[in-house]
Amino acid sequence: MNSMTADDSYTILHSDRRNEEAMTGTGSAGLPPHLRERLERAPVAGLSAQLRKRGLNNVVIEGVRPLVPGQKLVGTARTLRFVPNREDLFDTHGGGYNAQKQVFDSVATGEVIVIEARGDVTSATLGDVLATRAQVRGAAGIVTDGGVRDASTVAGLPIPVYCAGNHPAVLGRRHVPWEGGGTVACGGTTVQPGDVIVGDDDGVIVIPPALADEVVDATLAQEDEDAWIAERVAEGNPIDGLFPMNAEWRGRYAQWREAQ
Amino acid sequence: MNSMTADDSYTILHSDRRNEEAMTGTGSAGLPPHLRERLERAPVAGLSAQLRKRGLNNVVIEGVRPLVPGQKLVGTARTLRFVPNREDLFDTHGGGYNAQKQVFDSVATGEVIVIEARGDVTSATLGDVLATRAQVRGAAGIVTDGGVRDASTVAGLPIPVYCAGNHPAVLGRRHVPWEGGGTVACGGTTVQPGDVIVGDDDGVIVIPPALADEVVDATLAQEDEDAWIAERVAEGNPIDGLFPMNAEWRGRYAQWREAQ
Amino acid sequence: MNSMTADDSYTILHSDRRNEEAMTGTGSAGLPPHLRERLERAPVAGLSAQLRKRGLNNVVIEGVRPLVPGQKLVGTARTLRFVPNREDLFDTHGGGYNAQKQVFDSVATGEVIVIEARGDVTSATLGDVLATRAQVRGAAGIVTDGGVRDASTVAGLPIPVYCAGNHPAVLGRRHVPWEGGGTVACGGTTVQPGDVIVGDDDGVIVIPPALADEVVDATLAQEDEDAWIAERVAEGNPIDGLFPMNAEWRGRYAQWREAQ
Amino acid sequence: MNSMTADDSYTILHSDRRNEEAMTGTGSAGLPPHLRERLERAPVAGLSAQLRKRGLNNVVIEGVRPLVPGQKLVGTARTLRFVPNREDLFDTHGGGYNAQKQVFDSVATGEVIVIEARGDVTSATLGDVLATRAQVRGAAGIVTDGGVRDASTVAGLPIPVYCAGNHPAVLGRRHVPWEGGGTVACGGTTVQPGDVIVGDDDGVIVIPPALADEVVDATLAQEDEDAWIAERVAEGNPIDGLFPMNAEWRGRYAQWREAQ
Amino acid sequence: MNSMTADDSYTILHSDRRNEEAMTGTGSAGLPPHLRERLERAPVAGLSAQLRKRGLNNVVIEGVRPLVPGQKLVGTARTLRFVPNREDLFDTHGGGYNAQKQVFDSVATGEVIVIEARGDVTSATLGDVLATRAQVRGAAGIVTDGGVRDASTVAGLPIPVYCAGNHPAVLGRRHVPWEGGGTVACGGTTVQPGDVIVGDDDGVIVIPPALADEVVDATLAQEDEDAWIAERVAEGNPIDGLFPMNAEWRGRYAQWREAQ
Amino acid sequence: MNSMTADDSYTILHSDRRNEEAMTGTGSAGLPPHLRERLERAPVAGLSAQLRKRGLNNVVIEGVRPLVPGQKLVGTARTLRFVPNREDLFDTHGGGYNAQKQVFDSVATGEVIVIEARGDVTSATLGDVLATRAQVRGAAGIVTDGGVRDASTVAGLPIPVYCAGNHPAVLGRRHVPWEGGGTVACGGTTVQPGDVIVGDDDGVIVIPPALADEVVDATLAQEDEDAWIAERVAEGNPIDGLFPMNAEWRGRYAQWREAQ
Repeated sequence: MNSMTADDSYTILHSDRRNEEAMTGTGSAGLPPHLRERLERAPVAGLSAQLRKRGLNNVVIEGVRPLVPGQKLVGTARTLRFVPNREDLFDTHGGGYNAQKQVFDSVATGEVIVIEARGDVTSATLGDVLATRAQVRGAAGIVTDGGVRDASTVAGLPIPVYCAGNHPAVLGRRHVPWEGGGTVACGGTTVQPGDVIVGDDDGVIVIPPALADEVVDATLAQEDEDAWIAERVAEGNPIDGLFPMNAEWRGRYAQWREAQ
Repeated sequence: MNSMTADDSYTILHSDRRNEEAMTGTGSAGLPPHLRERLERAPVAGLSAQLRKRGLNNVVIEGVRPLVPGQKLVGTARTLRFVPNREDLFDTHGGGYNAQKQVFDSVATGEVIVIEARGDVTSATLGDVLATRAQVRGAAGIVTDGGVRDASTVAGLPIPVYCAGNHPAVLGRRHVPWEGGGTVACGGTTVQPGDVIVGDDDGVIVIPPALADEVVDATLAQEDEDAWIAERVAEGNPIDGLFPMNAEWRGRYAQWREAQ
Repeated sequence: MNSMTADDSYTILHSDRRNEEAMTGTGSAGLPPHLRERLERAPVAGLSAQLRKRGLNNVVIEGVRPLVPGQKLVGTARTLRFVPNREDLFDTHGGGYNAQKQVFDSVATGEVIVIEARGDVTSATLGDVLATRAQVRGAAGIVTDGGVRDASTVAGLPIPVYCAGNHPAVLGRRHVPWEGGGTVACGGTTVQPGDVIVGDDDGVIVIPPALADEVVDATLAQEDEDAWIAERVAEGNPIDGLFPMNAEWRGRYAQWREAQ
Repeated sequence: MNSMTADDSYTILHSDRRNEEAMTGTGSAGLPPHLRERLERAPVAGLSAQLRKRGLNNVVIEGVRPLVPGQKLVGTARTLRFVPNREDLFDTHGGGYNAQKQVFDSVATGEVIVIEARGDVTSATLGDVLATRAQVRGAAGIVTDGGVRDASTVAGLPIPVYCAGNHPAVLGRRHVPWEGGGTVACGGTTVQPGDVIVGDDDGVIVIPPALADEVVDATLAQEDEDAWIAERVAEGNPIDGLFPMNAEWRGRYAQWREAQ
Repeated sequence: MNSMTADDSYTILHSDRRNEEAMTGTGSAGLPPHLRERLERAPVAGLSAQLRKRGLNNVVIEGVRPLVPGQKLVGTARTLRFVPNREDLFDTHGGGYNAQKQVFDSVATGEVIVIEARGDVTSATLGDVLATRAQVRGAAGIVTDGGVRDASTVAGLPIPVYCAGNHPAVLGRRHVPWEGGGTVACGGTTVQPGDVIVGDDDGVIVIPPALADEVVDATLAQEDEDAWIAERVAEGNPIDGLFPMNAEWRGRYAQWREAQ
Repeated sequence: MNSMTADDSYTILHSDRRNEEAMTGTGSAGLPPHLRERLERAPVAGLSAQLRKRGLNNVVIEGVRPLVPGQKLVGTARTLRFVPNREDLFDTHGGGYNAQKQVFDSVATGEVIVIEARGDVTSATLGDVLATRAQVRGAAGIVTDGGVRDASTVAGLPIPVYCAGNHPAVLGRRHVPWEGGGTVACGGTTVQPGDVIVGDDDGVIVIPPALADEVVDATLAQEDEDAWIAERVAEGNPIDGLFPMNAEWRGRYAQWREAQ
């Protein structure tokens, strides 16, 4: 890797945003503070609804859960791809300072490591030492559609981790760590380096970066509206006409907003 | 719906107990207090055993878990059926004051909303606003073999909710809300409006209404017996002859009961 | 059923097209001959592509295969819904002249019986006697997302049958035959009575009746184009610019069509 | 069973270690205190890595979770095999003082009951009375790849229980209790009577008895090393060269150990 | 079996019919010719219905298909159990003249080898050499809920083979051959040595030996009746009243039978 | 793509053999004739056994079947990766002269197109036009762990195609065509460009190129031996001592070989 020049640092694959920066994590990763702050207040369910309104239905990383319920996850994707353990490839790529270790050693502040493990929960894809390294680097979280080992220790670290299960085995049981910085499939959707990743107890969602500002604004506005609706429902009003609001309810809502 | 006359308010389908009352929830829903009180004390495992003794093995709603462990669920079924999202049908039936909203707006005190979602956990089937509406109406709970969004908010409401998973997406991702008041398949068994629904950490069971009294009595009697057996086991007695009881142990148990 | 009057023959459920006609099969079922003839020439893959262009992605009955490969299926849906075998409901609805038998006895010429069996292949949903009855009635075919018994006999009948598997057990092992003439979920999509059903070795597709004419015309036009493209590819031309056609190739195609 | 003579008390099956002792639990079951004490400190993830180094990859009981997170499980296997519920066999073997009850009544101090339930979570394989009996007998735990009923009661007992799910139904819904003391398949691996069983939040592992001493020693040594590495990582050192350690880091580690 | 003395009853396991004879295949295996002849005419679907009438619903080996469609399988079970490949157990039991080879070398005329492979289709459980050995020994067939290698060669042998899939890998990839002559789980049901096994394109069924005569007689009688019904249906008669027959149709059938 | 210079034509990803040649197919693809000829005679089951002997167990592409049974597949891998359909990525990469079309247009004589489709059979990954293009280019075959549309037409082409199922939908329903020439996961194993791919009715296997000569020689030698053994078994000899051969049998075999 070290002998590479800038000239050959871009893959011919037009479709990835993978590059030297993505591999070494030297770039200015992470989200603008104002965007991050709003995303931290935006529930994933609300973001999902706004993305759906814009034609994006397949943006949920399915089948993962937070190791510790109630933890919000917000950051930009740093990707890592595992391929099935073929013994000869594990011999050449599995050991030493492999792609997995390179990614954890170079993850930047505010990044979320997103691991493609093909939904296989019969081995781990990370353990406590790597999770600690990511946390020390300032990573915003880890999402894997595979397993986690040392799960109780990892759960105790101050970094949110979403996974598909706990498993004691090392990754070599099922995986060869393959590459960092590429486009990955994770939990049934696709993640590119730099995508915005947000997670809570409902799940983890992927937001194309160019849409993040617009979507989070729309989500927070809808949250305000829904909170007001929820209060009306809690007061005993029927959903009919209120959720979604008809003209009459919308008028009252407008009045209420003005009065704030 | 409002323009319907009484004459056309009954389906030709002989097999459903669906009718205007079931749709509007104006009937005297809910369980007699004495039955409800006993069901609240009866564990689902015990009810399951008594139903099996009466030839009913396929009465468990499989694959659902309580959002909040430790919550007992007791009520009568109010049904809601979703069908797979076919885009043209979602256009005509998905929006506005759809079947889902009609059911949540009209659920009666003591009813449990039971949703057929074909076990699909890749979208939600309800969220916090609808759950709040059900709770305000006095519903006894919600059971869905699909997902729940706003799961942490819903978990905080004082209404027991059993589901197959959390998911941020709105129901339109996978479902068209189709009809209330019919017979539904949920978690591998069949539920009719008015069926008695009981849930705890072991799962959710469906009791045909005509059997509820008999089954709960037998369950509570067996519970008393099992509690006494458990004490004997805790004292160090072998299971052999005691569980189930042979004549000798049964005699001691009879003596003990008399002495109470 | 016989004692029903016209007044109560319509369900209150606005969403189904289920009615007396659908239950008794006395209506003028079947497709106009010109539409049927074109559908018989239209491959399911082509119809699927045209429906997708019109926003309909979820219209394939997944997971079913023809008992006899190479058989084309074309007709209008006659629906039948099974619910999970709950023993008390099987006692009341499973035997005698049940919903299953009523549907097979009343299916009209040109109709395709579409059975909702929740994808359960561990019992049959029909056998040779019922398949024979459907064939004698002039049914256009049978589609079930459950099993078929007497499979080798049924395969020998001149009626196309698509199913999810063979199984020797009678339906009571897993199902209660519930209702005919309603809206059903089958193989992950939704089917209403009267929907156009087309099947071949690629699978079975559901076409909303109002779209059938337009979709089949577009499909056959595209088939002509694709056939011409396939010939060019077979001659050694690259796909680039040809599939889909750029302006130059489209010009040649137009010339060729004029020359026909 | 009682009338058996010593002569016929051994199966001809060379492959099982099943014998009278295993059936009656009269042998000196349990682990030597020194081994047990070390296993209680050894994480399953570490044991898994050491077993993998020795060529043992398929030694995890997959798909089971502790009823109460955070409980360590250490003991020797006492096996119990269930076969699918075939009604005639349940009639002859399901009731009375069956194989299940015999095993729970005779489990010895320090043994872990390991149940083969073919991964079927649609019925229970034990409940509170049997779990109490095992606990009173001094059993070290219970592992089943099936379900548990009375789950909240069982969770309250001071005996660790690992299962694949909660379910209210009695075992007869899916199983015939078949035999104790044989070799079983559980969670995708094989367990023989006397195998060492260790569980924590990462999962449950099976250690061949002859390897237990060596494997636990290597695990604890590696734990010490990994703990030191984790501290270095927490201090901000890169993984590169440290995990695993290169010569330089190994030298520092040796120095540190000497200094202890 | 009848000639057994107490001395050769070996295993302590009361529940198996496993014994020396079963291991060596020296007994007079196979079915009485008259029973075999009738079973060869009896469809599995018909046998399944008769067994269900006698309370036996869980007697189908699910998920297996004939390598060659249209082949009837009739014989008595010779069982073989594989357990999951744990590397140390494969070392001791996998190689040499293992349990698998012993069973194939000793299978008797008229026996069907029934293999428990836990439904795992990611390795084979037999190949052409073993299938040839079984055929030369006069075995009536082979049923495995695992895979078959050399599938096209095996398909060419004059012995019916039912399996869950084709796979090139040898059994050691997933299995340790464990024991012959025990009770096995296969395709979701339980099979004991000596059980009657019948297969056709609908699937494979297990008949308890004591019921075989009664069940096959009832099946063939029902077949005659159903054939007559099928002719009536083919003539255009409705199913209503005919299938099953009401008094009037039963009268006509009785007349027809007398006239034969 | 055309504007790329040689300098940037190599990805930084050390682990792939992907390069310009792999993308354009201009290299000397295909197998040496002598190797190809021997592979065509070598059954996949035999190759699997030899690879296992060399420590390669995870080299089978699981879950695929030939569209036309009995077709042998031999060639070198040309890879193509699909990622899950995320709507925004499909907009940018799905249409036009996408990665899928580029690969089919540039596949070289003797290459096998191997497609990663994550085992998703609910859309197609190729149809008749693309299959025709591959065949015209001289491709040796196509393997996809997704679906095929126009299946009956594709089955009629003289190019072997292995897939996981038939499906009418275009790939956009589930996939974005992503990149050619990379390392892919297919059917649970990993495939690199240039890997040797061999398929028959038992399945499809991946052979690392450096091992191909050695493995095919060992396979054919073993085949000769096994054929001789199979003849001995067919003559009635027991497997014991013969399969595998003991010293005596091995002596006879040596004699026989000399006599040839």
